[in-house]
Amino acid sequence: MKHIQSAKNPKIKEWKKLLTKKERDKSGTFLVEGFHLVEEALQGNQIKEIIISENKDMPPGWDYGDIPVTMVTDEIIGQLADTETPQGVFAVCSQERSSEAVKGKRFLLIDAVQDPGNLGTMIRTADAAGIDAVIVGEGSVDSYNPKVLRSAQGSHFHLPVKRGNLFDWVGRLKENNVPVYGTALENAREYTKYESSESFALIVGNEGSGVNKELLANTDANLYIPIFGKSESLNVAVAAGILLYHLRK
Amino acid sequence: MKHIQSAKNPKIKEWKKLLTKKERDKSGTFLVEGFHLVEEALQGNQIKEIIISENKDMPPGWDYGDIPVTMVTDEIIGQLADTETPQGVFAVCSQERSSEAVKGKRFLLIDAVQDPGNLGTMIRTADAAGIDAVIVGEGSVDSYNPKVLRSAQGSHFHLPVKRGNLFDWVGRLKENNVPVYGTALENAREYTKYESSESFALIVGNEGSGVNKELLANTDANLYIPIFGKSESLNVAVAAGILLYHLRK
Repeated sequence: MKHIQSAKNPKIKEWKKLLTKKERDKSGTFLVEGFHLVEEALQGNQIKEIIISENKDMPPGWDYGDIPVTMVTDEIIGQLADTETPQGVFAVCSQERSSEAVKGKRFLLIDAVQDPGNLGTMIRTADAAGIDAVIVGEGSVDSYNPKVLRSAQGSHFHLPVKRGNLFDWVGRLKENNVPVYGTALENAREYTKYESSESFALIVGNEGSGVNKELLANTDANLYIPIFGKSESLNVAVAAGILLYHLRK
Repeated sequence: MKHIQSAKNPKIKEWKKLLTKKERDKSGTFLVEGFHLVEEALQGNQIKEIIISENKDMPPGWDYGDIPVTMVTDEIIGQLADTETPQGVFAVCSQERSSEAVKGKRFLLIDAVQDPGNLGTMIRTADAAGIDAVIVGEGSVDSYNPKVLRSAQGSHFHLPVKRGNLFDWVGRLKENNVPVYGTALENAREYTKYESSESFALIVGNEGSGVNKELLANTDANLYIPIFGKSESLNVAVAAGILLYHLRK
């Protein structure tokens, strides 16, 4: 096990770069933090290296084979962490899974969702609902952002989370006879009018402006969730949960 | 309109106290921030006074009658704000609505939910689903916490959000023949087995440990949402949305 004690070690600089989207994409990797996420990444077979505090032990149950492990000081841990009280363990993971050819019958398409908690929660919900892949469109927060990873609680390692052009995706899904449902507050039908189906793609959109109008014009149908009380709308991750479970069950 | 320029003015100290739960409860008031929330509070008739930046104008559409308005410096705004880029307007609101006698047929009971975003999102979702009141049990984050207020997007002014002892509530609801449903991962029935009903109470629980076991022993039934994929569970606010809309529709 290597042991790095100097914060000036060039490895530290390399890891810190993974805090920006640009550098994550350049290297094709991302950083996950905390025992639960590192364990999920191990099971998902996506780890390139592990970084652990010199004051922590590797959990005895972890089968990390010949994955390199580096011990570092808590000062270095603090520099890499996005949380205020880091658990003291990180893994550098490969983005490779996201280049997997996507197969399946059920898809969640995400159009310009900005809030990392919302995106992460939707990836977690899509996983729970047995969705085959999440497609993150342009204008959305990066799916490897530390807060997205935290909210998704490891679901990145369970199903493909791919970036893509949603217009291309909608076209391709329709060619393959997958019904594509948008979500909208106007010119839409109540979701309960649609039964669960073997295959579908659901598009959810930006917290303020919803799904792009041109995308909505290309769907098979657009759905809305009725508001029985006085709130103006639902949180996008809650709406995605209601619709995915309705269409899935 | 009063104009306060000194950060040492005793009014400022009084307002700043509202950043803590203890002082909010002592005064029976709470502070909301931003144009949307202040407008909702105005419509909900719960405002005692308005605080606005000397660099902002009161929106012409606001009918604030004889509610006192105080102009303050942006430095003072910054001291009161929970957000990084405050909009420059606050209202001191009365908690009174929460002392309203609760009537109705549909209830959401919240047991020890810790995350302010989750609690706020559930209050917003309960409003959307036409729930008559939200009962926040002991051990939950304070419902007047600024982050809870922000996530709820004004729903505090649409339906009663009351603190209460959940054991007392469950007892009283059952006496009134309101079916009480807990949520649990074990010893529970799939939620789709239950049809929508005219009246119900749903209990959701802590992010880590779920609903208190003794409470679960006192319900009419406990529900679970199936996990079709590999995630361990759903976010509590997403689960609440799926269940409320299923029971409500």
